[in-house]
Order: sequence, then structure tokens, then C-alpha cells
Amino acid sequence: MAAENDSILKNLIAYIQRKSFIWGPEPEIYNGIAGFYTYGPLGKELKNNVENTIRKTFKASEFWEVECPTVAPAPVWKASGHLDGFTDPVITCSKCNANFRADNLLEEFLRNDKETIKKHEEITGEKELEQPVPTDKIELLKLIKLHEVKCPSCKTSFCEVQEIKQHNLMMKTTIGLDIEAYNRPETATTTYLPFPRYLEFFRDKLPFGVFQIGKAYRNEISPRQFVLRSREFTQAEGQLFIFEEQKQDFEKFDDVKSDIMPMWSAKLQEENKEPLNISLEEAFNNKFLKNKAYAWTLNLAYRLFKNLGIPENRIRLRQHCDDEKAFYADDAWDIELKLSSFGWTEVCGVHDRTSYDLNKHSEHSGKNLQARNEQNEKKTPHVLEIAFGTDRPTFALLDIFYSYDEEKKQDTLKIPAHIAPVKVSVLPLVKKDGLSETAKEIYSELREIFECTYDHAGSIGRRYARNDEIGTPFCLTIDYDTLDKESPNFGTVTIRERDTCEQKRINKKTCKEIIEKLISNKIKFSDI
Amino acid sequence: MAAENDSILKNLIAYIQRKSFIWGPEPEIYNGIAGFYTYGPLGKELKNNVENTIRKTFKASEFWEVECPTVAPAPVWKASGHLDGFTDPVITCSKCNANFRADNLLEEFLRNDKETIKKHEEITGEKELEQPVPTDKIELLKLIKLHEVKCPSCKTSFCEVQEIKQHNLMMKTTIGLDIEAYNRPETATTTYLPFPRYLEFFRDKLPFGVFQIGKAYRNEISPRQFVLRSREFTQAEGQLFIFEEQKQDFEKFDDVKSDIMPMWSAKLQEENKEPLNISLEEAFNNKFLKNKAYAWTLNLAYRLFKNLGIPENRIRLRQHCDDEKAFYADDAWDIELKLSSFGWTEVCGVHDRTSYDLNKHSEHSGKNLQARNEQNEKKTPHVLEIAFGTDRPTFALLDIFYSYDEEKKQDTLKIPAHIAPVKVSVLPLVKKDGLSETAKEIYSELREIFECTYDHAGSIGRRYARNDEIGTPFCLTIDYDTLDKESPNFGTVTIRERDTCEQKRINKKTCKEIIEKLISNKIKFSDI
Repeated sequence: MAAENDSILKNLIAYIQRKSFIWGPEPEIYNGIAGFYTYGPLGKELKNNVENTIRKTFKASEFWEVECPTVAPAPVWKASGHLDGFTDPVITCSKCNANFRADNLLEEFLRNDKETIKKHEEITGEKELEQPVPTDKIELLKLIKLHEVKCPSCKTSFCEVQEIKQHNLMMKTTIGLDIEAYNRPETATTTYLPFPRYLEFFRDKLPFGVFQIGKAYRNEISPRQFVLRSREFTQAEGQLFIFEEQKQDFEKFDDVKSDIMPMWSAKLQEENKEPLNISLEEAFNNKFLKNKAYAWTLNLAYRLFKNLGIPENRIRLRQHCDDEKAFYADDAWDIELKLSSFGWTEVCGVHDRTSYDLNKHSEHSGKNLQARNEQNEKKTPHVLEIAFGTDRPTFALLDIFYSYDEEKKQDTLKIPAHIAPVKVSVLPLVKKDGLSETAKEIYSELREIFECTYDHAGSIGRRYARNDEIGTPFCLTIDYDTLDKESPNFGTVTIRERDTCEQKRINKKTCKEIIEKLISNKIKFSDI
Repeated sequence: MAAENDSILKNLIAYIQRKSFIWGPEPEIYNGIAGFYTYGPLGKELKNNVENTIRKTFKASEFWEVECPTVAPAPVWKASGHLDGFTDPVITCSKCNANFRADNLLEEFLRNDKETIKKHEEITGEKELEQPVPTDKIELLKLIKLHEVKCPSCKTSFCEVQEIKQHNLMMKTTIGLDIEAYNRPETATTTYLPFPRYLEFFRDKLPFGVFQIGKAYRNEISPRQFVLRSREFTQAEGQLFIFEEQKQDFEKFDDVKSDIMPMWSAKLQEENKEPLNISLEEAFNNKFLKNKAYAWTLNLAYRLFKNLGIPENRIRLRQHCDDEKAFYADDAWDIELKLSSFGWTEVCGVHDRTSYDLNKHSEHSGKNLQARNEQNEKKTPHVLEIAFGTDRPTFALLDIFYSYDEEKKQDTLKIPAHIAPVKVSVLPLVKKDGLSETAKEIYSELREIFECTYDHAGSIGRRYARNDEIGTPFCLTIDYDTLDKESPNFGTVTIRERDTCEQKRINKKTCKEIIEKLISNKIKFSDI
């Protein structure tokens, strides 16, 4: 995945770092290691808002949250397939010993080097720039040698390299003195393991849903793309356990069947057509979606992103074509967001994993992972999965709502109020004459409920600007009128809206209630 | 740390597992590995409530949250001292190769074996049962041989063992192909590293506070004590960065100076006296506490635990005596909770770490980690730390509020409403006649705000009992009167309080508001 617009990405990352959203690569004072980041005060606030919105949306659909260990022993990853299959091809320079991901190396080489492209066209007779890079190791090495790709570090040719190695992407560790274990590469596998316990909790009644928000680790060879592909990241994955026969007849489907979604089926993609805005019911009737339970799950994923405040014209649902579907997946759709920096970017996958995982873990653990259906038959349930992370949506919100005003030389973040890191800033017009005391009183009251700041440093214009830069939707200003018993404005404060710069006077006693309604979108600023 | 009451502990853990609070050791279906646990649906809900209360308390004191990587390269842990000093002594049986923590082995041996104790008394001439086990490896091995301690696995004597090894408690891993790294053994160190970034965010103004809630890992040889000492756990640590000269003159001290705390100074302990209930101001004047900033920080830690709903008579603050203080700590107090299972248990440490950490990281990274004070002098700030975790408070709440009614053969969890995992359960008296539809409507409305369940299975008494078992403070029952237009109770539902089993009828339109007030303790049940 390469940035669609490098200069937008560069400016965006500079802003994100400068304004204390995300720092890194960390640890910066030890010169940093690619793929590790710290969420600074504003970034963590934003990420918490993202995670809490996800939590709320899952819970509203009766999913329960669980928290499983992030470290698990080797047999778990043997069963899940990660120990053998979760690898990247690595090529090592025979001169300088630098390591590179072989497929990326070839891909970039083909894309960047015009002469090479020509040569590539001569060799292969193909005109297309981005022909798929082979996944086979031997094929890959053959092409690297054929194109005379050189080591990006020392410029030596790779012609003497004997083999491409498979590098496992899990971070290996040890429990106790000698138990082989790995930092989990995904939350999903760890969510499946307590299946017998879930049966107890849900009193043997399927379908039921659980989700997990937590850390996962992928030891990429050379991660770039900022927090879109890091070595440590936060996943949020929901799993619906359901008997196969319950999939067609899924009651909750009816609650959302008229919901319109921008769907780009495999067929539409093959026919070079645009995504279609259709209702879930139409999609189901058109056979875009195989069954009602999967349709409902896909819609839940869509609602997760809408609830985060992503504009509808920035979201689309793209079905996997047959050649990209994971071998265990019966159906798979991605949610893609249109980013200003990276263009259309995958942020979520919705998979019908069938009974694959429970079968594998049953086989490897020797434990029965079946449940009794209504006919009292023992069957292994299927799993419908919503797999995503919280780093990409957090980044997406910054990408989508950040802008730079060339004229004013000013950053602005027009992020929706409900997800903004700081909801309101309380500003005394001046420090003296009791204004800051009143401001602090209001601040103390508000910060019990909202993330809220108090600022008395610099001109009021500078302070408004500082808040616009970090996306604070509302500022309250306490001025002389607030305290002046002779003034018709006695007891009122000014509320300023970020996006319009408009100001209104409101009674200081009502500001908590008004801001609460503004943030939850119950009233608009113009209604005040 | 051994359980004070083994049977209480055993019953408590059985309850915790049975009711889906905490499962493990995980992965259970792969036979489990000591020290890893899953928080099930109710446990995760409770842990989230604990963490959100901590978050709210820190934020109310103007600490900002950050999220740093959980994996960091070796130089970080070299600087922090963990690479060299974070170790346990391990003895390996020369016959069966089993490994044991040498100090625990000796300690337990001395405690358990009456004959040995006698012998120990003969050998050493000491009468005390629990004399401190030596920390020195050579000394330790000498005593193990002297007492003829035997391997707990194969009963072979350790007399042929040549040495006790130091086992590092960090989980080692690799980043990329060859960068030595470790899963962090604490959040604190990772919180210190972005110090230059904090200066930017706080616009060079000290003091400022940051906190982090996240995973940490300690590879104990043989963890027992359930989630009180696990290999993977969640820490919550707050750090106040402050210039040394600001410590004496700390404004916020005045806000809390009249707060009474149960303080057990080193002196009181030496004199075999009980903890003293005194105000922060008295404690400061009595020289229990060296400076106002530390006093305020200790009080913040105390408030964190009070806000979690821990009863006051279960909390005490214990000062470290000189021989137990970490070498870098200028002052150190623990918060201890009185558990029914383990007795008085340490759950939090408040440390004046001086400028130790920033100095070490400056030295090792070569970066300047100083800030300019009001006199424009460059100085390395001090750090006041509140170090605790969220697993112990979560366990403590279950330990303190769980009880078993022998007569009714029933579990009850009388946990405070604001921290209870499920706030309200909505129950139709019977499934038919439209009762369940009305119940579901109320349930849908309530679950947007509270963690809420709907249950129509079994008798109403059984359903009340099920909710008492998991600590649900309130149940709403929808009965025939609710729907009967002729009844004076038309439009009302029954609200039942867990702790008194009392019931009242309230208008169904007001139940959201009433429950909200009950949970936030704005009204009592008797006020309805």
C-alpha cells in the first residue's frame, strides 16, 4: 500500500506529531524502531472515543466484551495456522546482510524504475505496470534476478542470493523457562478459545456475540505507512457464533433491512462498474449476500464506521473476488474508507469463517467444541467475524477532517463533536478582575462530564486558533459582561462554534446542558 | 504472599469462574499456563468500570492519558535497570530438571514442615517462624542445602545443585530479524520516554501529570495467587513531573488538606501501633509526609480506591520502612486493602522517584531530558508516581462484596451500583400477553445508557436470584398491571433493590431517570 498523495501524507503526519496525537517511531529518544508509536494526550483521547463508540455499537447489538491474554503458547498458533502460514518472504543481501521483504522489493522496483519497466515489458511482453508479484518464493527470486534488482542499502545485485526465506511475522517469546509462546498476531484466535465457557455464560443458547478490543503484534520486516501498518496495534474484533441453519433465518435482519449501503460486489468490480447504493434487503434479494445473518453482520460493521463519524461518501463495501478470499472464508467483504493521503484503504473485513476455527482448535486441543442445536444435535457452530483495528479509524478521522488554511497559515480539524478529543475549552477574556476564577469554576463543573481544557495564555484569537487546530468544537469565553451586574449580559458567557466561528451568549448555568445536547447532536448551534 | 483463608479463597475463585468473571489459567482448552487469565463478559464489564473510574479520577486531577508501546528494545531496559536487576533466583533439580523459585521454596519449606522448623530452630537458635529468607544467591543455596530441602516434584535433595541462577522476569522477544526487545515489565518506564514531547504539549509548564493504563508482563517462575500475581496484567500508573523546588509549595494541596486518611507511618509500625486516622494537613505537620506535592499525590491514590467503592475500613496507607524502600525512592507508601481471602494486601505504591529515571534515560540515550524552571535554569524534573494495576482492584471488589448464603444456598454480590457489571435487568413476569414486547422496549431504551440485560427464562424468583448472584443492583419487572388500563398501576413497572429485596412501583417513563439517579447515588431507593 503506497500513499496516493505523498505531500498530503507528509503534512498530515507532521501535524499529527506536532499536535500530540501520535508520536514515533518510538522510543524516539532511543532513535525509534519502525512500527511502534505512542498515542499522546490528544491521540489517546481520540482513540478512546473511537474504542468507546465501537464498544457502544457492539453492545447495542448484544455482543459482550471479553479480554483474553495477548501471549499464548505455540500449540494455539499451530492450530490457528499462524505458526506455519503467517510469513513474509525475506531476501538478504549477500554483501551487506541487509534484509528486505522480497515481494515489496520487486513491486517497488517495478513501479519506480522506468527503465526497468521498459525492460520488464520487453522481457514479459506485458504492458501493465502493476502486474501481480508472484507469491511463490522460487518464482520471486527468479524475477528479482531477471530484473537485476539491486540491494537498496549497498547497491549490490541479488544475483548471488541462493534462497528467499520465509520470515514468521509473530513475535516469539518464552513463558517460564522453556515454554515456547508468541505475542498474539490477532485477537480473533484468542477469542475462540474460551468457547466452552461462552456456552455456560449464554446458557447454551446460540447465536451469541462476543468482541474483544486489544493489542496484537506483527513483526513486519520493514513497516512504513505510519500507524496503518505497525508492529504493535489495537484490534477490535467481533465474533458471532451461530449454527449454520440459523444463518438464513436471522430475526435481527428485519431491524436493518431497509438500511442503504454502498456495495461493490465482486461482479460489479469485474464488470468495471461503480458501487451500488442499495438496501440490505435488495442486496440480499439480488444475491449479493448469501444469508441474512451475514448481511446483518456486514451492516453492523458498516454502522460501526458510520457511528465513528466517517462521512458516508468516504465509505464503501467491497466484496473479495474469488482469488483474494482466505481459504477458510465462505464470503468476505471489506469496508474501505477514502483517505486524502492513501486513497481508498481497507479498514475492516467481514468474514464468514464457517466452522473452520472451532474445528481446528477442537482437533488440536482434543476438546469438544460443539453445542446442541434446537433439534438437540451436537454441531460445531459457524463464526461470522468483523475484524478491524482502532488505529486505522483513528488515523482516518485525522486524515479526513484535517485541513490547512494556506491564507491564515492555520491547521484546522473539523472532526464531529461526539468524537473530538477535547469537547470544550473555557477561556477567561483576561486573567485579572475575577474572570479567571469564574472561568475555573465553570471549567471544574464541565470537566466532570466532558474532556475539557482551561486556557488563559495569549490573546483570545490565539486561543481560539489553538482550539481549532486540535478540533475543539466549542469554546466558552468569560468576559467582563459575565460579572457585570449592570450589564444585560450579566451571568452569560460566549459560546463559539469551531466550524462557523459564530458566537452566541448563553446563561452560564445552562452551558453544561447546552453543550451536552450539541455534542450528542440533539440540537444544532443555530438552534441556541 | 499466601492466602490468609484458603477455604474463602477457594470458594471465591470457584464463584468467579462459574459466574464468568475470570476464567483460567488460559488457554483452558490447551490445559492452561499458570499466570494467564481471560476476563469473561461480567469480569470485563467490571474491569472496564474500574478502569473508567481510574481514568475519570486522574482526569479530574488534570492528568492526561497516553498509550505507549508494550514492546521496547533492550537499551530502554538496560537504562531502567530491568535488564540487570529484574530477576528471581531459580534452582533446578539435578535429577528431574524441574525449576523452582529458590526463595519461595525455602520460605514455604520453613513454614510448612514442622520438623524442619524445629530443626531450623536448633540450627540457627532463632525462634521466629518467618525469619526473612536471604536475597543473596549463595546464602540461599547454603540454607537450602543445610535444611535438606527436597525437590517438590521428585523428592530428590538439592544437595548436588552447584548454583542458583538469576532468572530475568522480562519476556524476551525480537523485533525485525535481530533487534533484542522485551515485553514491558511495567508501564512506568515507557511513560517516561516521551518526556521531550510532553514538554511541547504542556508548553514547558511544570508540574504536569500523565497516566497510562495498559498491559505489562512478568515472567514469574511459578505464579500462583490467581490474578493477584499473573504473568500478564494491566497496570494503571500516574506520573507527576515536577521541579524539586515546586514540591513544597503545591497549590492543589489546599483543596484536599482536610481529607482524613488512615495512615500507618514507619514509626507507628516500629512502635507496634495502629494506623492513625488523620487529615492530610496533620500528617504533613506531623512530618509523616515530607512535602505537599507528595502528600497530594498520596491522597489522589487514596481517592482512586475510594472512588472504586472500596469501603473505608478496608483501606490503609502504609509507609515503607527504610529496609524495604526501593533504592531510588525518596519516600514510599503503599495502599493496602483488607481482603477476606488474602488479608491485608498491597494494591498500590506511591513513590517519590526523584530525578532518577529521567537522569538514567538521559545518560543512556544521550538526549537532554531537562526543562527550564521559572528562574530559567535547566533542571531535571522529579517524578511522583502512583503505581498500581487494575486486576487487583477488580479482584478486591469481588472478594469484598461476595458472600454465600448457607441457608438459601445462594451467591450474592453486594457491589456498589456505580461499579456493578450489569446495572439493571428487565424481566417480563411471563413471556406471553404482550409482556415481553413491553419489556423489550424498555430494555432497548435502557441499554443505550446502562449495561442492561433482558431475561425471560424461568420463574421470577429464579431470575431475581440470578441477578443477585452477579451483583445487578436493580431489576425491573413488567407484569399484567403494567398493561392493564383498568388497573391503578397501569403504565408502571416494579423496581426491586438487590440489597433489601424491596420492591416499588414506578412509572415506566421515569425508570431511566430514576435508575440513573440511583446509580450515581443522587437518590436512595427509600427516596423513591
